[in-house]
Amino acid sequence: MKVLILGGNGYLGQATAEYLRANGFQVTSIDSDIKSTWMKQMGVSPLIEPEVDYDIGDAKFLREEYYAGIDAVVHYAEQPSAPFSMYTDKAGFDTVYNNITTTLDIILNVRKVNPACHIVKLGTMGEYGTPGVDIPEGYFTYHDRGGEDVVRSKRMLFPKQPGSLYHTTKVMDSDMIEFGCRVWGLKATDLHQGVVYGSETDEMRVTRFYYDAVFGTVLNRFVVQAAMGMPLTVYGKGGQTRGYLNIRDTLQCVRLAIENPPKQGEYRVLNQFTQTFSVQRLAEIVKRVTGANITSIPNPRKEMEDHYYWASNEGFKQLGLRPHLLDDSVIEQMVELAKLYADRVDEKRIRPEVRWVK
Amino acid sequence: MKVLILGGNGYLGQATAEYLRANGFQVTSIDSDIKSTWMKQMGVSPLIEPEVDYDIGDAKFLREEYYAGIDAVVHYAEQPSAPFSMYTDKAGFDTVYNNITTTLDIILNVRKVNPACHIVKLGTMGEYGTPGVDIPEGYFTYHDRGGEDVVRSKRMLFPKQPGSLYHTTKVMDSDMIEFGCRVWGLKATDLHQGVVYGSETDEMRVTRFYYDAVFGTVLNRFVVQAAMGMPLTVYGKGGQTRGYLNIRDTLQCVRLAIENPPKQGEYRVLNQFTQTFSVQRLAEIVKRVTGANITSIPNPRKEMEDHYYWASNEGFKQLGLRPHLLDDSVIEQMVELAKLYADRVDEKRIRPEVRWVK
Repeated sequence: MKVLILGGNGYLGQATAEYLRANGFQVTSIDSDIKSTWMKQMGVSPLIEPEVDYDIGDAKFLREEYYAGIDAVVHYAEQPSAPFSMYTDKAGFDTVYNNITTTLDIILNVRKVNPACHIVKLGTMGEYGTPGVDIPEGYFTYHDRGGEDVVRSKRMLFPKQPGSLYHTTKVMDSDMIEFGCRVWGLKATDLHQGVVYGSETDEMRVTRFYYDAVFGTVLNRFVVQAAMGMPLTVYGKGGQTRGYLNIRDTLQCVRLAIENPPKQGEYRVLNQFTQTFSVQRLAEIVKRVTGANITSIPNPRKEMEDHYYWASNEGFKQLGLRPHLLDDSVIEQMVELAKLYADRVDEKRIRPEVRWVK
Repeated sequence: MKVLILGGNGYLGQATAEYLRANGFQVTSIDSDIKSTWMKQMGVSPLIEPEVDYDIGDAKFLREEYYAGIDAVVHYAEQPSAPFSMYTDKAGFDTVYNNITTTLDIILNVRKVNPACHIVKLGTMGEYGTPGVDIPEGYFTYHDRGGEDVVRSKRMLFPKQPGSLYHTTKVMDSDMIEFGCRVWGLKATDLHQGVVYGSETDEMRVTRFYYDAVFGTVLNRFVVQAAMGMPLTVYGKGGQTRGYLNIRDTLQCVRLAIENPPKQGEYRVLNQFTQTFSVQRLAEIVKRVTGANITSIPNPRKEMEDHYYWASNEGFKQLGLRPHLLDDSVIEQMVELAKLYADRVDEKRIRPEVRWVK
């Protein structure tokens, strides 16, 4: 199958391109490298930067030819950091502008050039927020109050409560893509992904790896702290509970989505995570494996620190996902890797400096 | 009270500015006049163009000083036409870009300069679409399936099903404003407005008036057709049912919203319409008053033409709205006006030329 990857030089974009190439897909990978500008603005840099094949191109204004003849476009071309989006007005504007125009460009090009092309959008479980009720897989059935003694029912999208401006852009992307499917007859899978961890895939001995408070995900940060002999910094009470998955399962999920497309006109939502953890629980696991201490620091975010959380992830089970669950060996391998690159770690960059409410 | 109106040179912006000024409000009105560019692109022009006081300014990039010391900002600064947004890729992009960046600029400025300022956003009943179930006033209570024998409940925003790219931008605006209230503690009223008709207010003997298929609303179009001795063109079966209101009630509603602000941190939704009609029913009313014929033409839109429709409008009843219901005299007055300006009517511009699906 022919696949176009947008945002092909990021943590997930690189690994996805290499994985799909190794598994017989014809892959064109594009990245504008604008993220390096955003990282400079924040004074951070990746711990590890492997080089992979990709073309320089701006997914916001991509030539139509890229969409001709492809089976799927995988959309990673977004500003992916919640703290970056909450940093300054300009950073917030840049996040909205980049993410919205990129997504719009994709649906306009697919509609014009190749309406059968499957749009695979990397969304986030963070679109749902933490509503305090069971989170279904995208849809639920609404029953109205029943005027005229009739209760009417409708399958509808579950409401969203994004917790940052970045997460809000992902909700807005979903709005546009769902519209494109419902009205223009496109087909899309919206992968509501949990927090990804891991630094290794079958194809990449080391993946691109961020450890800083802006672009790093929480488990990756914890293992770097453990490797450096620093305490693991939990924000507030640490009861923040989210879905998580190994980067190997991100790759599997994207492939399963591509190989099992929705029908034309369908907007499909798949919740993409394998386990749920609280931040405190993750810290305790890393502590058990590495002996690191845990410390609580003031929470820079506005979020609940102790709450109910349950979400469905039935869709990928039915598609045959074989999860790589979090075990000690994953953490040990990541800590070893972080120690190898210890001279590149800037400890100050792990401390959160962007506050949700000033 | 001090009010900033963005989009102050449009059909509703002009009338709102004049009404609030006449009622003792201190009004600053801003418009970039970008709509005249959009109208040129579509080859259309207003039937009537009164002149009112406003400053030229781009609400997308407005100086912060405009937000200092105001009680409310009324946000009309959007590309307001569904057909325009579905015309070309460029028109769609311009719609998304204008509407999203304008709304974002407002919430960023309010947060920075004046967080107590009440954001009054003109949204649309079209955000809800025609879901086939009773439409509540913004919120409903979600009950989950009850793992652990407990059914959890949560007040959530009713899901949206916008029917054009324009309507999708209004949903995306709502996402950003709701986020600004929930996370940044701003306060906003999102007026989900029905289709407005009318050409006269207490302050303006004639309002700005569009009759074309792109920027004109349906009843205004019908009366111009009746005045010209043309048949009233109903799209398809004509069973499309929507909420409607007289422009005088738009003014009352905006004022009631401003004078009764939500509390800090609240995102309030008010459904702003007074009656519901199907398009066929509206045509029959105009036919009865004027003797015009009715003809059906192919529907350029992708929409249901025969469907259940019921929506709550309790909020404004409770705030004391005194509706101006549609009666024959309103139609007679509008037809008289259209006859006065008959030499400016270009009949070709009433025919819909933008199709939802090519």
